[in-house]
Amino acid sequence: MESPTVALHSVIDHTILKPDARRVDVERFCAEARAQAFFSVCVNPIWVPTVAAALAGSGVATCSVIGFPLGAIPTELKAAEAAWVVAHGADEVDMVIDVGGLKDGDHARVRADVAAVKAACGTALLKVIIETCLLDDAEKATACRLAADAGADYVKTSTGFSTGGATAADVALMRATVGDALGVKASGGIRTRADALKMLAAGASRIGASASLAIVAG
Amino acid sequence: MESPTVALHSVIDHTILKPDARRVDVERFCAEARAQAFFSVCVNPIWVPTVAAALAGSGVATCSVIGFPLGAIPTELKAAEAAWVVAHGADEVDMVIDVGGLKDGDHARVRADVAAVKAACGTALLKVIIETCLLDDAEKATACRLAADAGADYVKTSTGFSTGGATAADVALMRATVGDALGVKASGGIRTRADALKMLAAGASRIGASASLAIVAG
Repeated sequence: MESPTVALHSVIDHTILKPDARRVDVERFCAEARAQAFFSVCVNPIWVPTVAAALAGSGVATCSVIGFPLGAIPTELKAAEAAWVVAHGADEVDMVIDVGGLKDGDHARVRADVAAVKAACGTALLKVIIETCLLDDAEKATACRLAADAGADYVKTSTGFSTGGATAADVALMRATVGDALGVKASGGIRTRADALKMLAAGASRIGASASLAIVAG
Repeated sequence: MESPTVALHSVIDHTILKPDARRVDVERFCAEARAQAFFSVCVNPIWVPTVAAALAGSGVATCSVIGFPLGAIPTELKAAEAAWVVAHGADEVDMVIDVGGLKDGDHARVRADVAAVKAACGTALLKVIIETCLLDDAEKATACRLAADAGADYVKTSTGFSTGGATAADVALMRATVGDALGVKASGGIRTRADALKMLAAGASRIGASASLAIVAG
């Protein structure tokens, strides 16, 4: 079960997205990420300037979320939000896909939504959250293909704010769909080292978690 | 328990905010609102143009949500989102307060956030969701006062996406805090006529619900 090829800490987006997070909580996550050499700290947009400043020179990336967690704002607002977080120091952007458009089979709308955010990201990396718990398997594969077509760098399972989180089966389906061309981020409900290793074994290349200290401690 | 002074249907914001709502679901809510003469249909921003068109000439208002449901995007993005929904037909705007700023005691930031959205609303009515389930009673009262100071027209209990919904005790606290100057909207977990009447008796002047048909049917 232990992955021989990856240092677990180095693929973790250390994540604090609860709306009642205080400054001291966000700053603690930044200090933890520096100490553990996590890949990034992932926060809501309002905290991006704080995190970018706290992580400057650390090698730890700043990550934020867009259209989060419902994905139901129009494309131009998602793009403006992405441009804002990148301008304020975000290196990575995790957007929520247009779940309603996907359910309606409006693939052009879903693809254009991702493409517009990608354009707004500039050189920042774009992950597309497909919210697997709301989709059937065919919709999951379609969402991954549309995200890839539109220029996404990663597909990501879950917001952590809906009816379910990452499963190994979904990660495997997503990896099979995107091949080696994109990254796959597993997030939502990953609380232990065993959970994280299971996701990596299924094909994940990044882990999103709030319980990151417990995960690396084993 | 029956309120003698209000027709229940006329104070209901008929609400569909689930991210996987399809066009047919949103259109059904609009037809239901016309038939029942609900006060408004409340949707995510992406559906505002659809709802405004479907409700044109009906007397039913179009309502949308801003910074929803976490409230953790910067002020300028909340203002841009409010301006967008109003430009596309929203008559009412339900924004989520800066919960983190409130927790940090940064009252100037919280007040300025509401004031900027109010300015962006133009003549549209502004409700401020304080997310009662995340606050203690002192914070609830402070949130109401800051919202009132910043020009809000209503205070509102809950997003329906956090750890709890409206309670009669919270509605009473909010009404006692704002007096007659502002409206109070109870939302989150209101599923029956008895629930709704209890909120009105406690001081609510508007009800947000998805189960509106069951509520008016009794």
